[in-house]
Amino acid sequence: MPGSTFGQRFTLTTFGESHGPALGGVVDGMPAGVAIDLERIQHELDRRRPGQSKLTTARNESDRVSLLSGLFEGRTTGTPIGFTIPNADAKPGDYSHNEAHYRPSHADYTYDAKFGVRDHRGGGRASARETAARVVAGALARQFLEQLYPQGPAPQVSAYVERVQDIAMPSPPAFYDRSTVDATDVRCPDPATARRMEERILAVKKAGDTIGGSVVVVAQGVPPGWGEPVFDKLHADLAKALWSLPAVKGLELGSGFSGTLMRGSEHNDAFTSASGSIRTTSNHSGGIQGGISNGEDITLRVGFKPVATILAEQQTVTRDGSASTIAGRGRHDPCVLPRAVPMVEAMVLLVLADHALRQRSARL
Amino acid sequence: MPGSTFGQRFTLTTFGESHGPALGGVVDGMPAGVAIDLERIQHELDRRRPGQSKLTTARNESDRVSLLSGLFEGRTTGTPIGFTIPNADAKPGDYSHNEAHYRPSHADYTYDAKFGVRDHRGGGRASARETAARVVAGALARQFLEQLYPQGPAPQVSAYVERVQDIAMPSPPAFYDRSTVDATDVRCPDPATARRMEERILAVKKAGDTIGGSVVVVAQGVPPGWGEPVFDKLHADLAKALWSLPAVKGLELGSGFSGTLMRGSEHNDAFTSASGSIRTTSNHSGGIQGGISNGEDITLRVGFKPVATILAEQQTVTRDGSASTIAGRGRHDPCVLPRAVPMVEAMVLLVLADHALRQRSARL
Amino acid sequence: MPGSTFGQRFTLTTFGESHGPALGGVVDGMPAGVAIDLERIQHELDRRRPGQSKLTTARNESDRVSLLSGLFEGRTTGTPIGFTIPNADAKPGDYSHNEAHYRPSHADYTYDAKFGVRDHRGGGRASARETAARVVAGALARQFLEQLYPQGPAPQVSAYVERVQDIAMPSPPAFYDRSTVDATDVRCPDPATARRMEERILAVKKAGDTIGGSVVVVAQGVPPGWGEPVFDKLHADLAKALWSLPAVKGLELGSGFSGTLMRGSEHNDAFTSASGSIRTTSNHSGGIQGGISNGEDITLRVGFKPVATILAEQQTVTRDGSASTIAGRGRHDPCVLPRAVPMVEAMVLLVLADHALRQRSARL
Amino acid sequence: MPGSTFGQRFTLTTFGESHGPALGGVVDGMPAGVAIDLERIQHELDRRRPGQSKLTTARNESDRVSLLSGLFEGRTTGTPIGFTIPNADAKPGDYSHNEAHYRPSHADYTYDAKFGVRDHRGGGRASARETAARVVAGALARQFLEQLYPQGPAPQVSAYVERVQDIAMPSPPAFYDRSTVDATDVRCPDPATARRMEERILAVKKAGDTIGGSVVVVAQGVPPGWGEPVFDKLHADLAKALWSLPAVKGLELGSGFSGTLMRGSEHNDAFTSASGSIRTTSNHSGGIQGGISNGEDITLRVGFKPVATILAEQQTVTRDGSASTIAGRGRHDPCVLPRAVPMVEAMVLLVLADHALRQRSARL
Repeated sequence: MPGSTFGQRFTLTTFGESHGPALGGVVDGMPAGVAIDLERIQHELDRRRPGQSKLTTARNESDRVSLLSGLFEGRTTGTPIGFTIPNADAKPGDYSHNEAHYRPSHADYTYDAKFGVRDHRGGGRASARETAARVVAGALARQFLEQLYPQGPAPQVSAYVERVQDIAMPSPPAFYDRSTVDATDVRCPDPATARRMEERILAVKKAGDTIGGSVVVVAQGVPPGWGEPVFDKLHADLAKALWSLPAVKGLELGSGFSGTLMRGSEHNDAFTSASGSIRTTSNHSGGIQGGISNGEDITLRVGFKPVATILAEQQTVTRDGSASTIAGRGRHDPCVLPRAVPMVEAMVLLVLADHALRQRSARL
Repeated sequence: MPGSTFGQRFTLTTFGESHGPALGGVVDGMPAGVAIDLERIQHELDRRRPGQSKLTTARNESDRVSLLSGLFEGRTTGTPIGFTIPNADAKPGDYSHNEAHYRPSHADYTYDAKFGVRDHRGGGRASARETAARVVAGALARQFLEQLYPQGPAPQVSAYVERVQDIAMPSPPAFYDRSTVDATDVRCPDPATARRMEERILAVKKAGDTIGGSVVVVAQGVPPGWGEPVFDKLHADLAKALWSLPAVKGLELGSGFSGTLMRGSEHNDAFTSASGSIRTTSNHSGGIQGGISNGEDITLRVGFKPVATILAEQQTVTRDGSASTIAGRGRHDPCVLPRAVPMVEAMVLLVLADHALRQRSARL
Repeated sequence: MPGSTFGQRFTLTTFGESHGPALGGVVDGMPAGVAIDLERIQHELDRRRPGQSKLTTARNESDRVSLLSGLFEGRTTGTPIGFTIPNADAKPGDYSHNEAHYRPSHADYTYDAKFGVRDHRGGGRASARETAARVVAGALARQFLEQLYPQGPAPQVSAYVERVQDIAMPSPPAFYDRSTVDATDVRCPDPATARRMEERILAVKKAGDTIGGSVVVVAQGVPPGWGEPVFDKLHADLAKALWSLPAVKGLELGSGFSGTLMRGSEHNDAFTSASGSIRTTSNHSGGIQGGISNGEDITLRVGFKPVATILAEQQTVTRDGSASTIAGRGRHDPCVLPRAVPMVEAMVLLVLADHALRQRSARL
Repeated sequence: MPGSTFGQRFTLTTFGESHGPALGGVVDGMPAGVAIDLERIQHELDRRRPGQSKLTTARNESDRVSLLSGLFEGRTTGTPIGFTIPNADAKPGDYSHNEAHYRPSHADYTYDAKFGVRDHRGGGRASARETAARVVAGALARQFLEQLYPQGPAPQVSAYVERVQDIAMPSPPAFYDRSTVDATDVRCPDPATARRMEERILAVKKAGDTIGGSVVVVAQGVPPGWGEPVFDKLHADLAKALWSLPAVKGLELGSGFSGTLMRGSEHNDAFTSASGSIRTTSNHSGGIQGGISNGEDITLRVGFKPVATILAEQQTVTRDGSASTIAGRGRHDPCVLPRAVPMVEAMVLLVLADHALRQRSARL
């Protein structure tokens, strides 16, 4: 596949540039019979959309999704779900300065190097706007996973902002429900830390600069057995999913880099048997052992770099290689993290939906 | 694909358990006309093989690879290259204690949860022995990449041990050639650090314990333009490749988590034009922007946990859920890092070979 | 992939039901730099659209395609091309009788058996209306292939109706240009045969019945070397492509079933050397040898069954298994062949575009 | 994937040339828990092997398969099954005349056109010897399918020679069990027809010539619901599978080309309800409607051309384009059909095993 499709059994194919007529995608492999709540899909998009708070870009996209197929009388039919999201507030004129100049740490130069041509309006295909389609698909995946076990608890995925630049939550990664996460604009479940993060973001925005940080995502209720040996380990697919998001610089599973400082005798997760189910007494493994879920919380930390668009003038070159300078215009986020939360959840949900289906082939 | 195949145009499919008759694989998509030096393939295997130094497991596998197809008169024919590596020193009897007990932080429990059956001998398919097939394929990919540009410089991939537990090289990630890396058993290119690492490993081995650390891998000479927008970003595929190795807990690209502490104005890599080619004055991006290579060094750091097999008695459960204890027997590494170096290189080489071919479709 | 995606390097993913809001698709892998003539895409759709002549269904769809991405200033950018085709003349009310009854030789029963749910309106996803998206993608593939060799002749694909029921052209398969094919409503390049075919179709239509026949498709100018050994033989991919169209019952390559009556000494295509290029003196092979194109015309014959919807009352069962009867209503074609011509061309074009790109990886 | 892998969930990857050290393959996606009878795998290979009767080539390969992984205590473990088949009776010296000359209607020229290099020994990768690996995989698929429904009847696949040149069975396609098919060397279940076929084959062999014919394959007991809408229709995947075999010139499903002569009112298969299950009163559909199985027999007819290697001198060209002649040497079959029977079964079995697993994702 050429690179716009993700997944094997539950797949998403996306299309769309930042300032073209529309973005969209196709979810294929959705099993038949899943009841779909359209408002919840829109709500996920609203969490990602620009202009949602003073912390984000001023681009004001309503981001209304239209589902065009694959649903009948409120349920999935097993056929592909096509959808579009119009670009309503596109202002391509804003980006004419991008045409000749390569913005530092953006994808302008590399797209030209690869394709010899580039839709320079607002980043084109490289714009983070592309992730809107992922959020729609993630919302569909979430509803599938919620209905997967009519009797038992559903796999749940929740992300939050753990750290903005050097302002970090004091507590270790954990599962927080959405109301707690969304209680603050910055989507940090610790109110005191959230307040400090917001102040920092606004200060940086005022300075025309940008910052990054980290998002933690936890998948709870994933049953033991998801993931495959060797190349398609559950965390290998999660890694690909998360690294395919814009601006990612680092990823940790469970104990992460800290775990690499420990001895085996400290790091190993002892098994114990609790009311009939096998559990571990610690979770340095981050819920995955040998590439396969063990029933504990799957815990990942994703590091995002500071947004590349800044207002200060920067040294760069033009397409023909002449030295030049460029300063940010257009509408951009001072910190991607609050809006990254739904993107991170979406990618984890897509991987889980895919492996939920793949798992059905594991045994005779 | 079910999980034993990696890549899209340059692919590797592997098979084999730790204590079955043989491991092996099939490399498909190798272009016709590549001259293959068989001794260099064997040499890569020798770097990975157990028993190569006092720092590694005592299992003494000669790891002789047989190439069965796809070559004719010393060159590739464009048809698949099948190969096998016999398990010569398998001692399945050593592992009978694994049958009923779940070893902590191994894949015993999760394999049972997934498949309902498990080849318990030495970890079966979950054994790191599986990576021997990856090393063979990586060695083939390397020779392809070296011959890709008859006129120009070849993409080169080199990895080394940067840190063992808390003993780290004082210098930042860089490209070291193989002779420097292989000058010490621990494969750390800084001799003083290497000495301290080796002492630590031997002390830990003596204590029956294990340790982890980090490997840095650098790809030099990758031309601008490799990688794809959106899901198959070059670093997304590298992330999947590296996270598919056993024991990985963390991954960083370029500036990594440190970069998430910086401001955009510090982190952005300014463009400059040097003798006709476009370069950046810093490389926080780690050689990849928007998922596509920009011609700078691709720099990744991989964190490996301490090996799970330790000699001390640990709390665990049996298959039927009863509390029990287990202590390591068999033959194991106190620290996986020296042998991880060729595995890491192999996975990066496979991704680069794949994207070298995918790139051929980018333009009319 | 779950079944709505076709191809490996040049791919099409489709969505849409007969009576939902829209059909559409995503073409991914289109190389950058191809000049796209939008009117020619629409023209291909017009050849497929219902209501184009008295020989086809009365459903009167304008079938206007909107391209939503992947184009910039008239050229492809290398990013996915998303498109939609609204269902303007959908009359879902017409199909209420389909809800409870299984129409004979339609997919009603099998969809229920598979999915447990079915969009019964006009065949839903099983409607031949789905092929509109294929025609759009085929039109894009055609423009890519036309520009593939700036110096040399372009691969050309042309199909025509060779036989309607027992009324067949007297001449063997050959390449006819579009003006000749489209000179008659039935798309048979022999005017006398065309006239007889049209009379037959109208008579059958009057009788409320339906008929089938065969379409011949010829690909001219495909260079030697496209296709792959073993599973992805060029004709294996063509076979899958063509058998994925609705109503196909038979397929022949080159000499076809007639060739199976010959002796090897008669059937073999002798090689000859003409002005520097290697040719064959006959073409029983149909342009493909060992799964790889040899430069001769690729010639395929596709047999289509009579359309399943007829006006006569037929024996059937209801969803709950009770005996019942059903008679066709809705709007349907008496003979699918004239409209099948652009569908057949589209599928062959998709396979050729895919293998044109795959071929770029064949050699160092 | 580059072309040596077949299937999506139940996959086969093959390697090997006719005169290299060995052929082999990897079956991935086999569910855990299938009991494997190794002798039955060998028996399938014996049905395909050369030298089995006076009707086949004199090459005398024992074709002993070694299974190298994926089995433990007689059952599958869910991990890939690697296997090799040594080329014991390879006589590469026999084929030196192939090096410079292109054998008519073989793949010599097209391989050179594609790859620029060719293993000329006995056809190399293009040799039908490659199908041995398919037969092993098909035998594994068969055992999986037999154990799929512990309570119910198993899907069964049986093929036979229906026609040799113009000598055809008088009865329509039907399911014959193996003992009936294998009762004659030619594998035609009608003894009188079989006798005439054998006489014809021996006469043609004596004349140094070759003939073709047709094989019928019937899959019985496939439950309703296998196959997918649109591109991965069950018969589209079967078509690709069968057309990937060497020497195929035509394919028919159910009524085939004869069905294209009928009217819809004759061709439609009326539904009826028999003891609780929905059946059809005729089976022109060949067991598949809308790309999905309907529970009736799946019936396909495959036409094979006469073998290309003949003893008579034929006109050809050399690699450098000079006119020349060539006459067959080496060891070849006068008629491929008796040995094609197990190959055809294997490919159908692989498709069914794949769709059996894919079907598990169809519903919530």
